[in-house]
Amino acid sequence: MSPAPTRDALSFPSAQGTQIDPYITTSSSHSSSKPFVTLTFATSLDSSLSLSPGVQTALSGPESKAMTHYLRSKHDAILVGAGTAVADNPSLNCRIEGVGGYGGEGLAGQPRPVVIDPKGRWELSKESKVMKLAAEGKGKAPWIVTVQEVADEKKEILESVGGRFFVLPVTRVESQDSAPSIAWPSILEALVKEGVGSIMIEGGGAVINGLLHPQCFHLVDSVIVTIAPTWLGKNGVQVCPDERFEGDRRVPVGRLKCVKWIPLGDDVVLCGRPKLE
Amino acid sequence: MSPAPTRDALSFPSAQGTQIDPYITTSSSHSSSKPFVTLTFATSLDSSLSLSPGVQTALSGPESKAMTHYLRSKHDAILVGAGTAVADNPSLNCRIEGVGGYGGEGLAGQPRPVVIDPKGRWELSKESKVMKLAAEGKGKAPWIVTVQEVADEKKEILESVGGRFFVLPVTRVESQDSAPSIAWPSILEALVKEGVGSIMIEGGGAVINGLLHPQCFHLVDSVIVTIAPTWLGKNGVQVCPDERFEGDRRVPVGRLKCVKWIPLGDDVVLCGRPKLE
Repeated sequence: MSPAPTRDALSFPSAQGTQIDPYITTSSSHSSSKPFVTLTFATSLDSSLSLSPGVQTALSGPESKAMTHYLRSKHDAILVGAGTAVADNPSLNCRIEGVGGYGGEGLAGQPRPVVIDPKGRWELSKESKVMKLAAEGKGKAPWIVTVQEVADEKKEILESVGGRFFVLPVTRVESQDSAPSIAWPSILEALVKEGVGSIMIEGGGAVINGLLHPQCFHLVDSVIVTIAPTWLGKNGVQVCPDERFEGDRRVPVGRLKCVKWIPLGDDVVLCGRPKLE
Repeated sequence: MSPAPTRDALSFPSAQGTQIDPYITTSSSHSSSKPFVTLTFATSLDSSLSLSPGVQTALSGPESKAMTHYLRSKHDAILVGAGTAVADNPSLNCRIEGVGGYGGEGLAGQPRPVVIDPKGRWELSKESKVMKLAAEGKGKAPWIVTVQEVADEKKEILESVGGRFFVLPVTRVESQDSAPSIAWPSILEALVKEGVGSIMIEGGGAVINGLLHPQCFHLVDSVIVTIAPTWLGKNGVQVCPDERFEGDRRVPVGRLKCVKWIPLGDDVVLCGRPKLE
C-alpha cells in the first residue's frame, strides 16, 4: 500500500494537464546530445519575474503553482541559476499528489534539482530547503554545475544526501557580462550523459534571457509561460533577451509556433515551440 | 439602401464581440467629468510595442486588427500621442463592415481621432492619411490637443475637413520628462464637454505608460491588451510604467480584476478592469 498523501500535496486538474502534455512529450526522433528542454517561468504583463533582484514577488495564482509542480513531475530534472538558489532558498522538489514523498513510493516522479553556479555563489548547507527535503526523502539531492574544484567539506555535505558537483570548463561567450560562464550545450550534454532525458528550466532572469538569446533558442524544445494580469513597473527583473540583427536591421528575437493559450485562474498559460524568425 | 461594403472592410466574429462587449459598455452610473476610457494596445511577450521608436512592428495577427476596428466602432473617439501620429501616419478610422464609409451611411460608427501633441510635433498636411480619409468621407477629421496657439495656416487646413485644435494649459507633472505636458484629467474633461462619452486610447508608449502610472490608472475604466507570442528583445518601445512605492517598499503598480483571456488567432486578448494594488 502506498503511503497516504501528505497535507501539503498539490493537485492539478487532468483536463488542464491534457492540454499541456503535448508540449512536454519528447518526440521519438529527439536528439541524444541534449535532454528535451522545457523553458518555463511566470511574468507580469511588463515581462518581469520580480520587483527587484532577490525579491520573491507573488505573481501568479494557486492554479499556476499546481501547474508548475505538475510539470516538475513530468521532467527528469529541473534547473535554476545560482541567483535564484541564493535569493529564494527554493525547495526544487515536486509536491504533486502521488509522487514520492507525497503519497507515492520512494522518489518516484521527483525531478533532479540542478543549480548552475559557475561562480560558487550558493552557500549550500544542511539547512538549505533542498538539502532538508533530500534528507527527508521528499526530493532528490541537487546537482551543482560549476567551473572550479570544490572544497572537500562542501562536497561531503552535498554527497551525504546523494548530490554531486559537476565541474565543467568555462566558455568564453559573447556577453556583456564578464563573469565566468558555461555554454548551454556543455551543460545539457553533461546532463544527458547522466541519463537526464528531459529538463525543465525555471529561472531566474539571467538563465531565461540566456536561453532566449538567438544563439541558444534552438536548444529549447518547448516554452510554457504563465502571465499574470499585473504590471510590476520599471527596474524589475525582466525577461527580455538581447537584440537580434539581420545585417543592420533589427528583427524580432524569436516567435513561438504551435501556440496554445490556456486561461488558468486569473492568469494565462502560453504553450509553444520555439521558432527563430 | 445603404452603399455596398467597400473591398477593404473588415469583419469581426460576433461570438468574440460578445465576449469583449461587457468591457466596453459604459455603466449608467458613469462619471460625467470624463468619458469612459478604454486603454488598448498590442505587445510582444517582453512587453514591447515595437522594435524601436518610430518603427512599426507587425506583432499581432489579422484577427487582432479586426478586433481593433471593432473596438473603434464602439467608441466615440480614439486617441494617440504625437509620436504615433508622426511615426505611423495612421488612418485612425474604423474599417469594420457597415460603418460610415464602409457600407454604412455618412460617418455612422466612425470614431473621432484625437491626437495629443503638446509640442506641436505632428506636421499635419492634406496628404496625411487621416486628412485624406476625412476628405473622402471615410473617417472623421482629427482633433488635436496642444498647449500653444496654432498658426492660422495649419488651423485652416485642419478646419477645412472639419477638424479642430484644442489649446489646453500646460501642467507640471511629476515626471523625469521635462517636455510640456497636459494632465490627463484636463484632456478627458475637455473631451467629455464636447460630447465624447467614450474613448479608446491606443498608444504609443508614452501615452500608455502615462495612463498606467499610479496617479492616472484610476482614470482608466477598461484595459484590452493583445499579446503576441514573440520576443522583440532589448531596447524596444516598452510598456512598463514607473515604479510604485508604499513608504520605502516597492509594490506592484497595478493589477486587473474581472479578468478574461480570449485566444485570438496566435495571440491572446486580455480584458480587465484596473485595480490599484
